[in-house]
Amino acid sequence: MTLKAPDVMSLSLLRARYGHDAPGEIIVNDVVRGLLSHRSVRHFLSDPLPEGTIETLVAAAQSAATSSNMQAWSVVAVETSERRARLAQLAAQQGFIARAPLFLCWLADLSRLERVGLSNGRQLEGIAYLEAFIVALVDAALAAQNAVVAAESLGLGAVYVGALRNEPAAVAAELGLPSNCAAVFGLAVGYPDPSRPAEVKPRLPQAAVLHRERYDHASEGPAVARYDETLGDFSRSQRMADENWTGRMLDRVGTRASLRGRDRLREILNALGFGLR
Amino acid sequence: MTLKAPDVMSLSLLRARYGHDAPGEIIVNDVVRGLLSHRSVRHFLSDPLPEGTIETLVAAAQSAATSSNMQAWSVVAVETSERRARLAQLAAQQGFIARAPLFLCWLADLSRLERVGLSNGRQLEGIAYLEAFIVALVDAALAAQNAVVAAESLGLGAVYVGALRNEPAAVAAELGLPSNCAAVFGLAVGYPDPSRPAEVKPRLPQAAVLHRERYDHASEGPAVARYDETLGDFSRSQRMADENWTGRMLDRVGTRASLRGRDRLREILNALGFGLR
Repeated sequence: MTLKAPDVMSLSLLRARYGHDAPGEIIVNDVVRGLLSHRSVRHFLSDPLPEGTIETLVAAAQSAATSSNMQAWSVVAVETSERRARLAQLAAQQGFIARAPLFLCWLADLSRLERVGLSNGRQLEGIAYLEAFIVALVDAALAAQNAVVAAESLGLGAVYVGALRNEPAAVAAELGLPSNCAAVFGLAVGYPDPSRPAEVKPRLPQAAVLHRERYDHASEGPAVARYDETLGDFSRSQRMADENWTGRMLDRVGTRASLRGRDRLREILNALGFGLR
Repeated sequence: MTLKAPDVMSLSLLRARYGHDAPGEIIVNDVVRGLLSHRSVRHFLSDPLPEGTIETLVAAAQSAATSSNMQAWSVVAVETSERRARLAQLAAQQGFIARAPLFLCWLADLSRLERVGLSNGRQLEGIAYLEAFIVALVDAALAAQNAVVAAESLGLGAVYVGALRNEPAAVAAELGLPSNCAAVFGLAVGYPDPSRPAEVKPRLPQAAVLHRERYDHASEGPAVARYDETLGDFSRSQRMADENWTGRMLDRVGTRASLRGRDRLREILNALGFGLR
């Protein structure tokens, strides 16, 4: 364990993450610096990944915690370009899915438990409840995040793809998923294209997300206002369209239509076998 | 980036994680070794955490990806012993919650988006759907896992507490949560007690969770049978009750009663303001 006061690199990472609202005191080491450096990479080189990469990411993923050791997730590693292209079509036409050498489809998977039950002559009642889906979703997310941390430590870049939930039935057909199993998000993985570097994206001030002892949103309004400014500065520095968090959020979840079909997710998951009771 | 063939330490970590079913080839560095070393720590020293620990864990958490930058999560850091004791009572009487110096309550939080909407004169329709809850849950899980990776890199131990979903309404009252905001899991954090060391827990063989191109559970039956043996060897080596994954899973989700009240989670989340449509 090496504890150090924030060095120049860490201060610059905190500044990138929080603008003028960085926490005053944090403890840094190589791992923390790596986590603070995260950026979503959407521009990849076509270089293949080193032998053993998938096994390494999955070993990291399986090392994450899992509720009661249920391990209610699986992952489909898609490397063939035709299938990546088809999945890109299903996931809001995001072309980087077709261009990254590896696309991992993370599954909330209650089907394995169902099969274990059936092979022991039992129908497992518990998996028909929303709670079981929550377990599967959290297990999948913890696993995937460990895979991201491992990938970034190996010099790879990655980006999550929530749009894999736009057409869950078509994705299930493409991947041959059994009942009680659905792709909940994707992860494109590859070497970042150095000619199109991704930047650390600013987040809300800690005052807006961290509460002490009890929830208290008294300081949230000013924190959000400062964040709108920070994100505006960021988008201008990136020569992107001027981004304003408040406006973006109103667009993103303002109406049922803004969910782009995911307003039907509950009935589609039901059709894929999940009870969600 | 330092890539090395598996060294003795990595091979021993893989053996601990997979028994005789370890993947043959992985790529290792300090970060990957750290991830593979994860164990859930339930025995803590009472030592206080260094200044800045919470801010560090939250900075790591906020550096994780978040769906469309919605940041639909918050965290309540509970340090006072009275509140930790009350939360331990609500979470299946797990005494380590009262003994760890820090208990982080991770929140699926759509209330911030709701407030941002209201302060702009808008009711945001999109947050009433299951999709929005999924976004919040995944955001919270990715964030929490980054906090775990950071904590372990600092020599701390941690354990997730799913039992925080046993009594979500009472937990919401204890933490003063607004509508559209619920604690989805806890995380106890502290220095591991070296006199009661935790061990790396074996997981299913990769053959059971990793699929190539399409889902294929042809090799799952034998993989689960081998895993039952691996877990049996592990539990005997720990002088614990003989553990058999299959049997444990049948108990854990076999009946509605085995969910220990979480079969009512959907209606409780509805009562806490989540539409889940």
